[in-house]
Amino acid sequence: MARIALDAMGGDFAPQATVAGALLALAELDPAHCIQLVGSTSVVEAQLRTLLEGELTTHAAQRDRLTIVEAPDVIEMTDKPSAVVRGKPNSSMAVGLRLQAEGRSDAFVSAGSTGAQMVASMVILRMHAGLERPAIVTLFPSARKPVAVLDSGANVDCSAEELVQFARLGATYVECVLGRPNPAVGLLSIGEEPEKGNAVTKEAHHLLQSSGLNFIGNVEGRDLPTGGTEREAVDVVICDGFVGNVVLKFYEAIAPLMIGTLRSAGVSAEQLQAGLKHLDYSEYGGAPLLGVKGVSIISHGKSSPRAIKNAVKVAAQAVVSGMNDQIGARLAAASENAA
Amino acid sequence: MARIALDAMGGDFAPQATVAGALLALAELDPAHCIQLVGSTSVVEAQLRTLLEGELTTHAAQRDRLTIVEAPDVIEMTDKPSAVVRGKPNSSMAVGLRLQAEGRSDAFVSAGSTGAQMVASMVILRMHAGLERPAIVTLFPSARKPVAVLDSGANVDCSAEELVQFARLGATYVECVLGRPNPAVGLLSIGEEPEKGNAVTKEAHHLLQSSGLNFIGNVEGRDLPTGGTEREAVDVVICDGFVGNVVLKFYEAIAPLMIGTLRSAGVSAEQLQAGLKHLDYSEYGGAPLLGVKGVSIISHGKSSPRAIKNAVKVAAQAVVSGMNDQIGARLAAASENAA
Repeated sequence: MARIALDAMGGDFAPQATVAGALLALAELDPAHCIQLVGSTSVVEAQLRTLLEGELTTHAAQRDRLTIVEAPDVIEMTDKPSAVVRGKPNSSMAVGLRLQAEGRSDAFVSAGSTGAQMVASMVILRMHAGLERPAIVTLFPSARKPVAVLDSGANVDCSAEELVQFARLGATYVECVLGRPNPAVGLLSIGEEPEKGNAVTKEAHHLLQSSGLNFIGNVEGRDLPTGGTEREAVDVVICDGFVGNVVLKFYEAIAPLMIGTLRSAGVSAEQLQAGLKHLDYSEYGGAPLLGVKGVSIISHGKSSPRAIKNAVKVAAQAVVSGMNDQIGARLAAASENAA
Repeated sequence: MARIALDAMGGDFAPQATVAGALLALAELDPAHCIQLVGSTSVVEAQLRTLLEGELTTHAAQRDRLTIVEAPDVIEMTDKPSAVVRGKPNSSMAVGLRLQAEGRSDAFVSAGSTGAQMVASMVILRMHAGLERPAIVTLFPSARKPVAVLDSGANVDCSAEELVQFARLGATYVECVLGRPNPAVGLLSIGEEPEKGNAVTKEAHHLLQSSGLNFIGNVEGRDLPTGGTEREAVDVVICDGFVGNVVLKFYEAIAPLMIGTLRSAGVSAEQLQAGLKHLDYSEYGGAPLLGVKGVSIISHGKSSPRAIKNAVKVAAQAVVSGMNDQIGARLAAASENAA
């Protein structure tokens, strides 16, 4: 069972979306799981009452698996990520992560500031040995299975060694959380051949060949929407956080553009919703911050209750599968092999 | 008037697509323009006959503005780009570019190997003073006007100074060929703020602020499909060729993915064609190779006759607008200002 701390105050639609998402998640999760709503007790209680007396009246049974953990400080969008932990030690983010560091919780989920969550997770949960910074992994919808892309924004200038670490982190995540054994790892570049790419990519290609991972070689931008090359599917795609973030934001903006042009061409809203449903990020829930000692799931700032629900489910699966221990074990094994 | 040399042998569908594209282009261009079809005379003549006696029988009048220039060597996909100029001096690519270097042609268009065209253009046309390598500019369809993105694949590791040169090249191209005065230039990064981005991007941001260009600051991946930020439109987006190529190939692969899922959701092929028409690269013709002394237009390897026609029209516009002289003058002015 998992005790999942949810930042009740984080995200554009908090606390309505977060509290509602918690109730929706508990209705779908195994009854052994529970959620700790972290935030202003009075605000969370009032929101809970509104929902249970209103649109989520059928979810009253889930109330027993919810606890509220008081966190009076509020993080503003103008707060510098680096100042959050020290300056606001009783924010929902700091309190939620501290619960985990103290062994009173198993996972943390937030739709608040990504930068603040990253810094707070690094400081409070700390990093696995050998890692300096975490990586954010995002699931990209594709014509085959969703592809795990990392880093999608935490690290802008990466060394080849860091890209190899991302590959280990991503492969463990896909195996534990998505349940795909021996995931295929591709390196994002501008041509299939090992000699194609920038200097860091070419070096990383070389290192990945002897990494012990199921490395299928370079993949290109076109292989993301198709979920792999013509020959084989890809589960994990590695890139630095600059490229990953540019492509992620590009992808998020494409669907609205297409919907606009197709609506003008007379396609009905219902047809578009059915056809483009799998491009909706709320389907995929949160983006784990990998490399920290623990489970910290980043949810989109614009998360709906459904997106929060899915992020909580990702957190539960990460806990149940022992993802964090697996990551620690694999990093240790790789560093022993290298020594 | 422009004399445009077209590589009749280049591209997956040559010589049918190239010769047909030439006839289509001449029918739309000002009668003062003419096309030089470069390739095997017998092959081109046979193809011309087939088309004029068949599907393009209405285009007989265009025949007079076509000449055939013999080029017996054939470039294979296995030929190394660097070996083409020396190893196959009589390929359609080398002959076509030499016509321009010798003053007997004004522009060159090819759907053949991009790498070979880049190297041959550098060697035969040579670079403008102060530039080491050319950049490829591609038009990205957007919700507003198409956005010129460069570099989209010629330069994988770029310095901040090179990114600024791309900005000058791209702005001149947009002004001359697309007819948009004082184009807005954005720098592709992972946040609006100047301090967001990787090391090279942050330095380039700083340099662009005093470049004399209409620099609107950083743009993000999401601003490409929307054609700018919420506040303002963008005409030119600058990035290194690694990021540019990844995003370009990603974009090219998105439409087929969406078409597949929307077809399964019951949207008709006609509606999709109407709605997604502006995402078809053949609408936009060729991608100019900027920085060489002359006009060299790269057309997609899978170019249809329509795509070839549009690439030829881009070439004509580049010649008529004096793009090449403008580029030379602006680079010289910028280097004087810097000195």
